[in-house]
Amino acid sequence: MTDLVLSLDVTGRKEALRIAGACAPEIDAIKIGYPLALAAGLGIAGELAELGLPLIADFKVADIPNTNTLICEQVFAAGFSAVIAQGFPGPDSVTACVEAAHAHGGECYVVAEMSHPGALTFFSAGVPERLCEIVAETGADGIIAPATRPERVRALRALIGKKKILSPGIGAQGGDPAEIAPLVDGMIVGRAIYGAADAAAAARAYAPYRR
Amino acid sequence: MTDLVLSLDVTGRKEALRIAGACAPEIDAIKIGYPLALAAGLGIAGELAELGLPLIADFKVADIPNTNTLICEQVFAAGFSAVIAQGFPGPDSVTACVEAAHAHGGECYVVAEMSHPGALTFFSAGVPERLCEIVAETGADGIIAPATRPERVRALRALIGKKKILSPGIGAQGGDPAEIAPLVDGMIVGRAIYGAADAAAAARAYAPYRR
Repeated sequence: MTDLVLSLDVTGRKEALRIAGACAPEIDAIKIGYPLALAAGLGIAGELAELGLPLIADFKVADIPNTNTLICEQVFAAGFSAVIAQGFPGPDSVTACVEAAHAHGGECYVVAEMSHPGALTFFSAGVPERLCEIVAETGADGIIAPATRPERVRALRALIGKKKILSPGIGAQGGDPAEIAPLVDGMIVGRAIYGAADAAAAARAYAPYRR
Repeated sequence: MTDLVLSLDVTGRKEALRIAGACAPEIDAIKIGYPLALAAGLGIAGELAELGLPLIADFKVADIPNTNTLICEQVFAAGFSAVIAQGFPGPDSVTACVEAAHAHGGECYVVAEMSHPGALTFFSAGVPERLCEIVAETGADGIIAPATRPERVRALRALIGKKKILSPGIGAQGGDPAEIAPLVDGMIVGRAIYGAADAAAAARAYAPYRR
């Protein structure tokens, strides 16, 4: 029904490569963040890319346009196929990420909502809806919206139409894959897979919900 | 009157070390961002720290609390003395950065406003003021506010009292050091120094405004 994206939130290079390799046949994409990229170096992207799966840089890029461009140029040169940006710095900052992504045949996703408690301080009162407008205006490829709030995923789907939704918060954070998978293009699962004694088996458990 | 912070926005390790070394006697701190940290590796921090100046990680940290903690732990372990976080992910995300900073005897600054045109989409209508409240609530050490809008720096100073203000946008972006220096704790200058034929001399030109 949807892609299974492994959120590879470990900070050791060898552990990351071992888990990614074991899970590769059971997943559709891999997402890594700054904790791993800083610990292992951006070169980890090239090693993970050898698995032949799309590789998402979950860097929540959140700077001025020129700095966003410099970050994203390195992201795509390193072997990533997509980047996740924050929309809060505004449309010109998002455009910088989108242009760098598309120049490399890659994708850019914008965070529309976040799942932790404090996120509601600012990601509320029409802000996610305005962020979806920015996605449309800038030509970004989709949004990030939390699986822990399926009613919000439905509301944002109505706004962004056929653009993609990637949804974290499934598994350890409580999001239900049976409910979320039909609503989104990618279900992002982290700890429930990489934290399992048998990561490949844990990933395989999501097979009923994959396309 | 105020500290001079060199924004070392180059992406080559050797160039960064050369410019930082030449400017060290003329400046009070060095700030680097992800473009340099990703290109050179986080180890560049240890090399720059040998100059004996405070080193600021301008990573605009903007993730969930746990990821922010993982990023900041690496930042301070690498030799940085301060980190810059985005506040819009909310108070718990900021608290994660503040706690990591203080556990290492370091500082955490929160972006209150940004200087590029698109920033006004969300950094407006009371948002900077709410971000200043979060700085107070979380025990963060200060804010980032743009030198290109001195009237806003004055307004935010009234809100945050004796907490520090670091102010980018001086020099190439048009901020006037004579006007901004008396208002802030640190004036951040980038291109006007690192882009000069004689970077040390360019830094020295700000001496009249330094403490």
